[in-house]
Amino acid sequence: MNAEILAVGTELLLGDIVNTNAEYLSKRLAELGISVYYQSVVGDNKERLLNAFKIAFDRSDIVITTGGLGPTKDDLTKEVGAEFFNKKLYLHEESLKNIEDYFKRTGRSLNEGNRKQAYIPEGATVLKNNNGTAPGCLIDENNKVLVFLPGPPKEMSLMFEESVVPYLKKYSNLVFESRVLRILGIGEGIMAEKIDDIIENQTNPTVAPYAKEGEVILRITASAKTKDEAVNLIKPMEEKLRERLGEDIYGVGETSIEEVTGKLLMEKGLTISTAESCTGGLLSGRLINVSGISATFIQGAVTYSNESKIKTLGVNPETLNKYGAVSEQTATEMAQGIARISGTNIALSTTGVAGPDGGTIEKPVGLVYVGLYINGKTMTKKLNLFGNREKIRNRAVNEALDWLRRELIK
Amino acid sequence: MNAEILAVGTELLLGDIVNTNAEYLSKRLAELGISVYYQSVVGDNKERLLNAFKIAFDRSDIVITTGGLGPTKDDLTKEVGAEFFNKKLYLHEESLKNIEDYFKRTGRSLNEGNRKQAYIPEGATVLKNNNGTAPGCLIDENNKVLVFLPGPPKEMSLMFEESVVPYLKKYSNLVFESRVLRILGIGEGIMAEKIDDIIENQTNPTVAPYAKEGEVILRITASAKTKDEAVNLIKPMEEKLRERLGEDIYGVGETSIEEVTGKLLMEKGLTISTAESCTGGLLSGRLINVSGISATFIQGAVTYSNESKIKTLGVNPETLNKYGAVSEQTATEMAQGIARISGTNIALSTTGVAGPDGGTIEKPVGLVYVGLYINGKTMTKKLNLFGNREKIRNRAVNEALDWLRRELIK
Repeated sequence: MNAEILAVGTELLLGDIVNTNAEYLSKRLAELGISVYYQSVVGDNKERLLNAFKIAFDRSDIVITTGGLGPTKDDLTKEVGAEFFNKKLYLHEESLKNIEDYFKRTGRSLNEGNRKQAYIPEGATVLKNNNGTAPGCLIDENNKVLVFLPGPPKEMSLMFEESVVPYLKKYSNLVFESRVLRILGIGEGIMAEKIDDIIENQTNPTVAPYAKEGEVILRITASAKTKDEAVNLIKPMEEKLRERLGEDIYGVGETSIEEVTGKLLMEKGLTISTAESCTGGLLSGRLINVSGISATFIQGAVTYSNESKIKTLGVNPETLNKYGAVSEQTATEMAQGIARISGTNIALSTTGVAGPDGGTIEKPVGLVYVGLYINGKTMTKKLNLFGNREKIRNRAVNEALDWLRRELIK
Repeated sequence: MNAEILAVGTELLLGDIVNTNAEYLSKRLAELGISVYYQSVVGDNKERLLNAFKIAFDRSDIVITTGGLGPTKDDLTKEVGAEFFNKKLYLHEESLKNIEDYFKRTGRSLNEGNRKQAYIPEGATVLKNNNGTAPGCLIDENNKVLVFLPGPPKEMSLMFEESVVPYLKKYSNLVFESRVLRILGIGEGIMAEKIDDIIENQTNPTVAPYAKEGEVILRITASAKTKDEAVNLIKPMEEKLRERLGEDIYGVGETSIEEVTGKLLMEKGLTISTAESCTGGLLSGRLINVSGISATFIQGAVTYSNESKIKTLGVNPETLNKYGAVSEQTATEMAQGIARISGTNIALSTTGVAGPDGGTIEKPVGLVYVGLYINGKTMTKKLNLFGNREKIRNRAVNEALDWLRRELIK
C-alpha cells in the first residue's frame, strides 16, 4: 500500500507559502507504515488538476489532497476529484448545518460559496471539520482511495488524526520504527566510506545518511508486525554502526551537540566559561540554548580586540606580539584567563580567521585555534575550516563543543 | 515558457524536512516571469526518478531539480537525468580541483564519493558551487532545459541566483528587476495595514511582502524592455513605500540589521561593547558577522549568572536583590558596566526571560529589557516577545540592533 500527497493551490506555486502539510502527512504516513513515493503540488486549474489525479492514481493506491475545499470559485479539488471518479455532488445536510452553526457562532451569515462547501461526492465518507468550516471526504473504490483534506494546516492535521488515521490503519499490517544517529567530526563522504557495505546491503532495517547544518545524520528504519519487533530489528543495526563510527556518533534523535555536551557537564557537576575571539559569542550563545544550563555556564567573554584579550583575560602582550592573536599560545592563555576569572572547571577559547578578509599564507581564512582548559590542564586544537564567514564560525563552535564532549567521555 | 520544480530526496518523503527550496524557487521564477504549474517530490530511487523526469518534461519546458548531488550512492539525480537525455558523464577537471581544494583546506582526503560529485553530463553547462562541494549543471537541448541544483538551501539559492537566473533571462523578452526593502520594528500585519492599498492596486511593478526570520521583506519587481526602464518603474514605487514606512525600512537588498548598524558605527567612528544575559552571546556574535568591525566592536561579556553580573560588570548586588536580574535597572547597570570597562562610546545590554521555564506573572517568558548606553547617557527599552527560546533571543537581538540604528540616524 503506498500513498501520494497532492497539494492543490496556486499560492504554493507562487511560493507565497511553504508546503508544511506535505511534511506533516509524509511523516505520519511513514509512522503508519504507508510508503509515500511522491508529493506533488498543482494549481487551482481544472485541466491540470484532472491530469494530476490521473498521474497520481496510475502510480499510487491512496491519494491525499490538501487544499481547494474553500468557498471561492477557485476551489475545485472536490469537484474535479468527483468528476475523476464519475460521481455527482449532493448537498450533505449535516455538513451544511455544521457550517451554519459555525457562522451563527461568529455572528455572520452564509453565502453561496459557503453552501458549496457542504456538497459531497455520492458514496463518499464525510470527514467532519472540527477546526473550521469545510468538511473533508473520502472516496474508496476499486482499491483506490482519494482523501480530500482542507488546506489550513490546523484543520488538515486535526481531520487527518481524527478521521483518516483510523481509516488507514486497516491498510497497514506493519509498524515502522526509526532511530536517528547524529555524527560530528567526520564529513558525509568519510562516513559513507566507513559504512558503505552496510548501506549497500540494507534491507530491513534501512539506513539513510544525510548532511544537515554541519553535521551528518543516519536514519535507521525498521518495519515489523509489532513495535517491539521493529525496535529489535534496529538494535543490532545500531550496534553495527556504532562499532564502525564509535564516538563520532555524538547523539541520538532530536538533539544537538550543545545539548549533549551541556548535559555531560551538568551530569558531572562541572562548570564552564568561554573566551571567544573569532566565534564572537556564538559558542556561549549555543551553550545557553541548553535548558537548565544556568548553574553550569558561568560566564563568557567576547574579546575581539588585542586590548580586551590583555585587559579582560590577562593574555600576555608578548604572546600576542610574538605569536599573534591567532595562535596556539593565545588560545591557551585565553582559556586559562577566563577559567581563572570565573573559577570554572572547564574553559573553551576560540581564536581564528573567519574571513573573508584577514587571511595570509601562514594564517589562511578558516584557520581556527581552540583552547580547552580542564581542571588545570590546557590543550589546543588547530582547525582548518572552509565556507563563508558564518559557516567557518558555526563549524568552529561545533568542533569545539564536540572536542569537549570527547574529552568528557574519555 | 513554464517551469517545474522537482525535489529529489527520501528525507522529504519521510517528512524529515520541509521543502523550502520549492517555495524559494517558485517565488523567484514568478518574479522572472516564468510560470510554475507543478512542484513534485520523488525519492532517491532510479526507476521512480526516471518516471518523474518523463512526466515533468511531458508538461513543462524547464525542469529544475534540487538535491541528490551528494557523495553517497543514494545520490542519483545527475546520473538519472543524464540517462534521460542519453548523455554520458565525464570527469570535469575544474570541479574536481574545486572539491580537492576544499578538502585540502579542511585537511581531509577525497574519497570515491567526493570524486563522483565532479562528474558532469556531456554537453552540460557546469554551475559552480560557491557555498559547498557539489557543482550543479544545466542541460539545454531541443527546447528542454534541465537544471540540477544541490539540496542544501544555502548552496541551492546562491547557485540559482549566480548562475541560473542569468541563464533563464533569455527566455523572457522582458527584463525583470527587483529591489528588496527590509523592515524591522513592525510586524507583517501592521506593515500590510500601512500599505494595503498599494498592494491591492499593484500591477507593474508588483509589491510582494513576506516574513523572514523575525523581519519583514518587501520585494518590488518591475518588468520592462530594458533594465533602465524597469529600474525607473521601481523608483517611484520605492518612494511611495518609504513615505509610508519611513525608518521602519532599515536596509535594501542583501543585508542584515547587524551590517546596517555596524556600518553606521564604523562611518561615525564609534566603538561598541555588549553585555548579554538572555541573548548569551548572540548579540556580539551577530555584530562580529560584519566584516571590518574589529576596530569598532571592542568587547562583549556574557554574564549569565548574577555573580558574573556583579563581578564582571559591577552591577550593584542591591539592584539585583531589589529589582531582579530581569529589570530596567539591571539592564542599565549592565550597559554602563561594560561601557566603563571597555571604554566604548556605545554599549548594548540584554536581560530577559527566554523560556521555556522561568516565567512568572510579573515577568513572563518573552519579557526582555535592552539597555543602551550612548556617550554617557543610558536608556532602556522593554520588549514583550513571543515564540520559542531561540526566536525570543533572535528577536531580542534584532530589536536591540534596530533600536541602536534608529538612535544613530536621529
